[in-house]
Amino acid sequence: MSVDLKSLALPGVQHLQPYQGGMPVEELERELGISDVIKLASNENPLGLSTKAREAVDRVLKDGARYPDGNGYYLKNALAKQLGVCANQLTLGNGSNDVLELLARGFLGQQHNAVVSEHAFVVYQLVITAQNAHVVIVPAKQWGHDLEAMAEAVDSQTRLLFIANPNNPTGTWAPLSSVERLLQSVPPHVLVVLDEAYFEYVDEAGYGSAIELIKQYPNLVVTRTFSKAYGLAALRVGYAVSHPDVADILNRLRQPFNVNGLALAAAQAVLADEEYLQNSIEMNRQGYQQLTSGFEKLGLDYIPSAGNFVAVQVPGDASELYRSLLQKGIIVRPIALYGMPNHLRVSIGLPEENERFLNTLSQLLSDGGAV
Amino acid sequence: MSVDLKSLALPGVQHLQPYQGGMPVEELERELGISDVIKLASNENPLGLSTKAREAVDRVLKDGARYPDGNGYYLKNALAKQLGVCANQLTLGNGSNDVLELLARGFLGQQHNAVVSEHAFVVYQLVITAQNAHVVIVPAKQWGHDLEAMAEAVDSQTRLLFIANPNNPTGTWAPLSSVERLLQSVPPHVLVVLDEAYFEYVDEAGYGSAIELIKQYPNLVVTRTFSKAYGLAALRVGYAVSHPDVADILNRLRQPFNVNGLALAAAQAVLADEEYLQNSIEMNRQGYQQLTSGFEKLGLDYIPSAGNFVAVQVPGDASELYRSLLQKGIIVRPIALYGMPNHLRVSIGLPEENERFLNTLSQLLSDGGAV
Repeated sequence: MSVDLKSLALPGVQHLQPYQGGMPVEELERELGISDVIKLASNENPLGLSTKAREAVDRVLKDGARYPDGNGYYLKNALAKQLGVCANQLTLGNGSNDVLELLARGFLGQQHNAVVSEHAFVVYQLVITAQNAHVVIVPAKQWGHDLEAMAEAVDSQTRLLFIANPNNPTGTWAPLSSVERLLQSVPPHVLVVLDEAYFEYVDEAGYGSAIELIKQYPNLVVTRTFSKAYGLAALRVGYAVSHPDVADILNRLRQPFNVNGLALAAAQAVLADEEYLQNSIEMNRQGYQQLTSGFEKLGLDYIPSAGNFVAVQVPGDASELYRSLLQKGIIVRPIALYGMPNHLRVSIGLPEENERFLNTLSQLLSDGGAV
Repeated sequence: MSVDLKSLALPGVQHLQPYQGGMPVEELERELGISDVIKLASNENPLGLSTKAREAVDRVLKDGARYPDGNGYYLKNALAKQLGVCANQLTLGNGSNDVLELLARGFLGQQHNAVVSEHAFVVYQLVITAQNAHVVIVPAKQWGHDLEAMAEAVDSQTRLLFIANPNNPTGTWAPLSSVERLLQSVPPHVLVVLDEAYFEYVDEAGYGSAIELIKQYPNLVVTRTFSKAYGLAALRVGYAVSHPDVADILNRLRQPFNVNGLALAAAQAVLADEEYLQNSIEMNRQGYQQLTSGFEKLGLDYIPSAGNFVAVQVPGDASELYRSLLQKGIIVRPIALYGMPNHLRVSIGLPEENERFLNTLSQLLSDGGAV
């Protein structure tokens, strides 16, 4: 009377491949027995936690044994004020990953499909597949989302359409006018999920947040995170802005205490820390110049990026170069799983980290010829 | 071209009623304009965060902008050692709520059902309903789970059977021998989920953890939390212990960074803090005596509890007494939603909190006659 336990899992779940995150620093240090590893692998904020966030965490630690405020009252009010929306349009998540998953769990049955772009952030496919729904992948155009083709891919069974703007790992982005054209052409039974995880870094003419469009397009959902420019990746907090009816569904579905109490306090503090945000953005701007100049000197092609990372094309086998960099104590991100086997994604670090990476890369490329 | 957005949600999701947590202290203080509110409403640890957990959080705050270790390497190894299991049998969650939800998402389709007891922890029903699966509620026996009747309620479409041991909000518990009899009689296509959130508090002859039974019964899953006796409710960390095949499914399905970095560090620290745990248990034992002696003096019936809370039967309308207590700055938990409209659930607090509650209760009962 035994049974194959894995066969009891739902079909979509059985086919899930776990997300491959960037290797943690401590893991590589453990493996290599060294202590000066640098990580340019997870699009993290190299400035570290903001002082104000740290102070906020210290203040609330005394309540560490109490459940967090499940409604996130103070953080939602602060966000609503800053974004110019109502608190009932907000859904807080354990990172924006959580709200992306809630959207799939709320609206995708096995009879439905969801539209994503080739090379798009892989979490969209994971949350769709976990629902046993069908993933419709639309070919990219010059590494970016082809929004017209994505709109055309919608059918009567489509319930979600994911746009990463900018996209990870390509760094490509779409102007607000193109996003609005897509919203005009997509039927109202499709929720358009616009992931603005890297929004704060973008400084391109024509780019804009889609939050202002929610009034006109109630089927639009915008997601944001505190894990990037706000530097709270360890704490886990993100959010969705939507029509109140969508927020109501997501809030019913989320875990009652999905966002921990330290994250609520830290997010509220860093949201008010304009100086930290500006420092993060400025350091990223300079680091982007530093990395891309370095790539140009090395004769390497890269995809122009609006985020805090660059996908660079390397000669030879990128996964081998990835492993060679690991041996030198530098973690970057192979992105073969994104259909980009010849690229590595490099997060923008501190100036000295970028320099060490470029020097090591240069050395490895000249040592190995075409590697 | 408009659409009712809520109608786009999956049927189970549309019918979800949000979980009603205990009112946060700050919310009542905001409403009443007072500052000495006490909360005996969420089965929290009144000792507050352990010093060792606090120190651990301080140590890792410097990495606050980095993603947490998605595999929870160090915490899993520490847990595996303490529990006498392998690390690949563990699934970490954002509270045990997270692993309960993963079990539903992994194994329950709309064609399936899951068996729960009357008066059982309500999260089971929420995670089942969110999957659009059918909830089979088995009548309780003297407030406790009727394990024989639960086993009999299993059919070919049952995939999960939830047992809270002890149960919240009743405090009832089942001896290990009864749990094993149930495991003997349940077919192997049913995962038996044994929720041991209050395990550490139990000091009853015949009670024991079911973890040791997993070897014999691969369809058994035991869940635990750091939110109760370990005092980390704000931080959100819990876990499941299971056969490695079940853990593999849950780990594929979970969010890649579901447990935040501060919680990982705090949990590892408090797991080694035997003194904190013993103090928590001892304070709970004394508080239980204090509360139940008080109830007896007031002539109130209560359900004998193995947890850190007591469900007490009150004369008249319990929801009215709940509101009267709120006006006096005391938050307890009405449990009409659990089919217990004549009870209030009172968490065991600090000695002075228990005393203030008992004095206020006595006063309200004598003021209001039968309230």
